[in-house]
Amino acid sequence: MSEDSFARLRDTVCAANLELVKAGLVVLTWGNASAVDRERGVVAIKPSGVAYDVLRPEDIVLVTLETGQPLPGEKLRPSSDTPTHVCLYQRFPAIGGIAHTHSRYATSWAQACREIPCYGTTHADTFSGPVPLCRALTPEEIEEAYERNTGVVIAEHFETNRLDPLHFPGVLLSHHAPFAWGETAAKAVENAVVMEEVAALALQTEALNPTAKTTPQSILDKHFHRKHGKNAYYGQPKEPTNI
Amino acid sequence: MSEDSFARLRDTVCAANLELVKAGLVVLTWGNASAVDRERGVVAIKPSGVAYDVLRPEDIVLVTLETGQPLPGEKLRPSSDTPTHVCLYQRFPAIGGIAHTHSRYATSWAQACREIPCYGTTHADTFSGPVPLCRALTPEEIEEAYERNTGVVIAEHFETNRLDPLHFPGVLLSHHAPFAWGETAAKAVENAVVMEEVAALALQTEALNPTAKTTPQSILDKHFHRKHGKNAYYGQPKEPTNI
Amino acid sequence: MSEDSFARLRDTVCAANLELVKAGLVVLTWGNASAVDRERGVVAIKPSGVAYDVLRPEDIVLVTLETGQPLPGEKLRPSSDTPTHVCLYQRFPAIGGIAHTHSRYATSWAQACREIPCYGTTHADTFSGPVPLCRALTPEEIEEAYERNTGVVIAEHFETNRLDPLHFPGVLLSHHAPFAWGETAAKAVENAVVMEEVAALALQTEALNPTAKTTPQSILDKHFHRKHGKNAYYGQPKEPTNI
Amino acid sequence: MSEDSFARLRDTVCAANLELVKAGLVVLTWGNASAVDRERGVVAIKPSGVAYDVLRPEDIVLVTLETGQPLPGEKLRPSSDTPTHVCLYQRFPAIGGIAHTHSRYATSWAQACREIPCYGTTHADTFSGPVPLCRALTPEEIEEAYERNTGVVIAEHFETNRLDPLHFPGVLLSHHAPFAWGETAAKAVENAVVMEEVAALALQTEALNPTAKTTPQSILDKHFHRKHGKNAYYGQPKEPTNI
Repeated sequence: MSEDSFARLRDTVCAANLELVKAGLVVLTWGNASAVDRERGVVAIKPSGVAYDVLRPEDIVLVTLETGQPLPGEKLRPSSDTPTHVCLYQRFPAIGGIAHTHSRYATSWAQACREIPCYGTTHADTFSGPVPLCRALTPEEIEEAYERNTGVVIAEHFETNRLDPLHFPGVLLSHHAPFAWGETAAKAVENAVVMEEVAALALQTEALNPTAKTTPQSILDKHFHRKHGKNAYYGQPKEPTNI
Repeated sequence: MSEDSFARLRDTVCAANLELVKAGLVVLTWGNASAVDRERGVVAIKPSGVAYDVLRPEDIVLVTLETGQPLPGEKLRPSSDTPTHVCLYQRFPAIGGIAHTHSRYATSWAQACREIPCYGTTHADTFSGPVPLCRALTPEEIEEAYERNTGVVIAEHFETNRLDPLHFPGVLLSHHAPFAWGETAAKAVENAVVMEEVAALALQTEALNPTAKTTPQSILDKHFHRKHGKNAYYGQPKEPTNI
Repeated sequence: MSEDSFARLRDTVCAANLELVKAGLVVLTWGNASAVDRERGVVAIKPSGVAYDVLRPEDIVLVTLETGQPLPGEKLRPSSDTPTHVCLYQRFPAIGGIAHTHSRYATSWAQACREIPCYGTTHADTFSGPVPLCRALTPEEIEEAYERNTGVVIAEHFETNRLDPLHFPGVLLSHHAPFAWGETAAKAVENAVVMEEVAALALQTEALNPTAKTTPQSILDKHFHRKHGKNAYYGQPKEPTNI
Repeated sequence: MSEDSFARLRDTVCAANLELVKAGLVVLTWGNASAVDRERGVVAIKPSGVAYDVLRPEDIVLVTLETGQPLPGEKLRPSSDTPTHVCLYQRFPAIGGIAHTHSRYATSWAQACREIPCYGTTHADTFSGPVPLCRALTPEEIEEAYERNTGVVIAEHFETNRLDPLHFPGVLLSHHAPFAWGETAAKAVENAVVMEEVAALALQTEALNPTAKTTPQSILDKHFHRKHGKNAYYGQPKEPTNI
């Protein structure tokens, strides 16, 4: 399999990573975006610790969906968070892209170890309930395989609570930061933007009204379904997209 | 009626939408501005879900002031909020433009379900009292015609409380976000900027002084009338404008 | 007296106004800077309500230091705050420039009707104590001459409290916003920047520690005198400047 | 010793200073970065009070590591904080660069006289515990040698508490602001960026959860050692650097 055949995948992932920077979600090198090609069983992800202003498509690293190991011929180390991405692709078959950042407001909620309540329609347009919070890993889980087990803890949280990853396209990790995802890498980045904005709004909402009430279910449902599912009517009619 | 005859209206509305972005009030595609041509009974508004960086005047959608339905030949769907805009133009004859955003501070007050008290002259220069807050829609109103009824609830709030839409050129919707308006689309955008700034100032004012007092009526009146009405003396002498 | 002979004064004031924008202290048209030429008894100030992005030196308006009335031949209206500026130049002979903004943090303290306590050396480098707060005007003072009396109230506050305007180069007006000044218009703008930053720091300091202590007098004095007076040693040795 | 032989050192320090501005950590002229050439016993530092937009490599001032006095031929005054930098280079042999700013969030913690608790992995990636806080100087220490004694107080704090300067690459000075350092000037600037971000996150974390718990030791250790020491695996394999 020649390198050229993955050129489009690398382009997509490079663009998604740069979009995170453009959206103001990245400080230094903290952040990474990836996409999966399920037909070929390959995940493309940002290299570890590379500065965004010199990132080029050919720097994007390819690893296998099965093991997370780099394909033969890859020159750079993949992001240290690669095992988390790979685990999520394995456990959430509907997603096609993932974005991880330490964006300021979402990370503050993660550090406060709180889920983000749904206080308004900005939130309900993307999440059909609170932004979920995962527990911190145990010392044993950290010792055994920190990054891999981060993915496991997320997947188990969604399974235990019967959350659909496309209805809740992101999560907060206790004492850490957010992960977002979507059907494509571009959508994952967009959902990371939404999480950050929703996190900022909710912080300010509580500052203004410490006993603020969450959005009534009827409004929440209305807004989520305006944009999702077969009766959606927001935006222009969509043509199918590939990645 | 040829398309060309609305070129100026489309230009105005396109410029107003881009001004919202330039002012930092827009995240992703959340926001829309419109203008009305009352002589011809036409409202021009942003298309739904179109990215701002590719928005051109010819993308602006024309709908009728009477029904909100697109004029024959329009190719894009209008903003999903179009029925709200159309309702407001029908009920508030003095306004010529509307701007809707999810700007961060104003939306936080909306989510907190609080009107914005008038704490200073920045506020009093544009609003002759608190920025009003509308109640959330009932499940029945949502089910029947969500966007249309959003306009109805706003109009009823202003009528019940005898508020002049040009003395209170904007409103907060509970659990949603702000709408602003004015005599022109450009003025509506300017008032959206004012609402956001006033919202930020008021949040910080309360953080600094939880028992902060609102502006004395004498100062409020002085500032509002410095800029409005026949004795206004702020700015340069104005020439009449068309839209 | 030909217009040319004031070209340099107009340039200085135009540059100072644009610097306010560049420093992020201005929303819409809210802000104005001025300078005085004491030898010729002339104050140069921004025109009222003119957008900053079209402001040119020839738009700057000249008024007399004695009356605040425009010189013969001036075409634009001066800022509506001109009588405040003129009053301050009359009462504070040591100052050469004034900057007025509605910058977000300083205005929040003004709206909260609180002086800004000195919590650190950033503050003490410029203000030798708290940033002063003036009382609001009475209905009678507003009715009689609002803008002129704003200056009178500031001057009386400084005289009553024996504050040296160059040791306290700015003030907060209750329910309104800050005024800053200095030996030149450029210095007034710089002091407006300092007030905004100091206001932001103090708000956050109190959020982190509601019983925060103010800076010990020994540190406050050290920092103020590092930068002011005959034993100052901050910066490069200075050459005399004209305006 | 000709000036040319220090050209690279001046370039490095000029770039580090400009990087502080680019990172948004600097207001006006508040901030300075330096580097040491230990072989030649020379420290290079920003000149005092020079505007960043005109700063060129040849403006960077060289002083001796032993006395802090400018080398013969230097034309500008070094930063007024030079004695603090020199003292830290003398007492912390492992560091190669220092950055001092009044960045908004870190300075707020300094003014609140609080160390920054470690609430998450963003913090633990760089600091192996809370960001330390030093006591304010006594009136006697200020009188004797303010800037020099600032360095002494920092060094004594680290020695008394047995803190490794590379495991805690920065400190807050009570009522003042942060200092950051690292193996190079570039790394010192990076650590100044980290301190500011960590300070912002911690402020918001406490706003969201006044009883927030600090990061479990197992997570803190994992993240710090992912990036530091012989088992580090973050980033690409490193080649040795000189400064």
